[in-house]
Amino acid sequence: MEQQRILCVGLVCLDIINVVDKYPEEDTDSRCVSQRWQRGGNASNSCTVLSLLGAPCAFMGSLTAGPVADFILEDFGKFHIDVSLVTEHAQCVLPASVVISNISTGSRTILHMNRNLPDVTENDFSKVDLRQFKWIHIEGRNAEQQVKMIQQVELYNSRLPQQQRITVSVEIEKTREELYQLFAHGDVVFVSKDVARHFGFQTAQTALTGLYSRVKQGAVLICAWAEKGADALGPDGLLIHSDAFPPETLVDTLGAGDTFNAAVISKLSNGGSLQDALTFGCRVAGRKCGFHGYDGISEEFSDG
Amino acid sequence: MEQQRILCVGLVCLDIINVVDKYPEEDTDSRCVSQRWQRGGNASNSCTVLSLLGAPCAFMGSLTAGPVADFILEDFGKFHIDVSLVTEHAQCVLPASVVISNISTGSRTILHMNRNLPDVTENDFSKVDLRQFKWIHIEGRNAEQQVKMIQQVELYNSRLPQQQRITVSVEIEKTREELYQLFAHGDVVFVSKDVARHFGFQTAQTALTGLYSRVKQGAVLICAWAEKGADALGPDGLLIHSDAFPPETLVDTLGAGDTFNAAVISKLSNGGSLQDALTFGCRVAGRKCGFHGYDGISEEFSDG
Repeated sequence: MEQQRILCVGLVCLDIINVVDKYPEEDTDSRCVSQRWQRGGNASNSCTVLSLLGAPCAFMGSLTAGPVADFILEDFGKFHIDVSLVTEHAQCVLPASVVISNISTGSRTILHMNRNLPDVTENDFSKVDLRQFKWIHIEGRNAEQQVKMIQQVELYNSRLPQQQRITVSVEIEKTREELYQLFAHGDVVFVSKDVARHFGFQTAQTALTGLYSRVKQGAVLICAWAEKGADALGPDGLLIHSDAFPPETLVDTLGAGDTFNAAVISKLSNGGSLQDALTFGCRVAGRKCGFHGYDGISEEFSDG
Repeated sequence: MEQQRILCVGLVCLDIINVVDKYPEEDTDSRCVSQRWQRGGNASNSCTVLSLLGAPCAFMGSLTAGPVADFILEDFGKFHIDVSLVTEHAQCVLPASVVISNISTGSRTILHMNRNLPDVTENDFSKVDLRQFKWIHIEGRNAEQQVKMIQQVELYNSRLPQQQRITVSVEIEKTREELYQLFAHGDVVFVSKDVARHFGFQTAQTALTGLYSRVKQGAVLICAWAEKGADALGPDGLLIHSDAFPPETLVDTLGAGDTFNAAVISKLSNGGSLQDALTFGCRVAGRKCGFHGYDGISEEFSDG
């Protein structure tokens, strides 16, 4: 049987990253130092990193037709990410997020665009052949539908012996009330520093202790906190910690969180311990901040 | 014989236009009101407007291969602009200009990107069958080569009776020393407010009087000055003026200058007087500022 894969469900978009040495004043013309186009979106970025770490994976999300979609599909292909579960919406426009990255100050200014693309629905998900997957990671977006998708996985799991079951992870990154119902689902829950602070916590440790009552029985709650490293709390009640591994020079923090999630998932899905996974997540994410994009990951890390 | 056309030589690029209702502060995340992709570049924009005014035209410039080029070629096609003189450079990247268009103020902030695409050369131009054209408009870029192109047209013209000759116009928009040699060439010279101010002039009238000695004998020098309208000076020494025609609400000033140039060229190339051309230029450009993009032009103006 083919090696089972990891499925990431969520967003793909185009990031147009404009590097400047001075933030542009309104109503002027100025010139970028450089510009690059990058496939973005949390779930899409995590797929990139999984693939670079040697973990076969698939992306599920929606895409438009047209030149941007061609660019994105080509880029998925470059990283050997399965896109057979991507749905194309021919009439919609896939907008780009414009990032103005100021090398003089390190500031990042982001112009987001409202997508008019529908998210993956419970119905779309019901058509997926779950037997291909050993792990499903869900980027919290349309949470109500996503809870129903997870319930489909739970039903599928309930007919299987423990060791054949699919592990479900969820990411709660944005401070949106709707997403918080996802705490109660998923075997592994990634909660962001932003969300933790929104709940009033000032450290990863207090956030984990304070939020653990929200997760389902037996689940692991993980919280990364930028240069403070990351912490995790499992059913045994033991707080686990890894320090951050900052690069010598901070070059590009875009997608560092997605990198952390992917590295943790890759380690856990290969039977690694929570401590190993956490440390690996911090190491890979830290290194990633030392170069642009993700390509450098494959040179520095062997199979998850 | 087929109707002779207008050729515009210069830049085509992709403009990614982000409409905002507040100019983004540095280091924040904000959301656009809307986003659109638009074919841009001065010569390319002028072709769009010429076409919408009913003047058959062709674009000459360079393009990459790839998805952005596909988008651009499709858009040229939509406006029936001849692209048979476009050269494709497969290895180059066509970068996007990021435009932040503020609907609250009408301001447009542009982040340009250095293109690694070669400009049209004297050699490329020597292969053009000049008999197709009655007017050639050159957006000042690689001026040294462009002077040689104009000399090719002058040689061609020298063998023809006056009424069959090609009129040459040049645009000097950017404040770059190299471009100023173009003043001495071209039957019609468009000089920008930016360049005029760079030479120390505070009004279009003083700029025209001060710069007229640089143009060749018999040439017309034209200078548009945003909400102050536009002025022109010909060999008879008479200063001609048109007021601006501002729209009720300023919506989008991107490409207003390219619109002005195209409208002036379309009128002059149909035998209109300089005063008519100037007034028409101001009217079309003013109206254009009242809507996004260019499509509205065809509804409001009949054949040039």
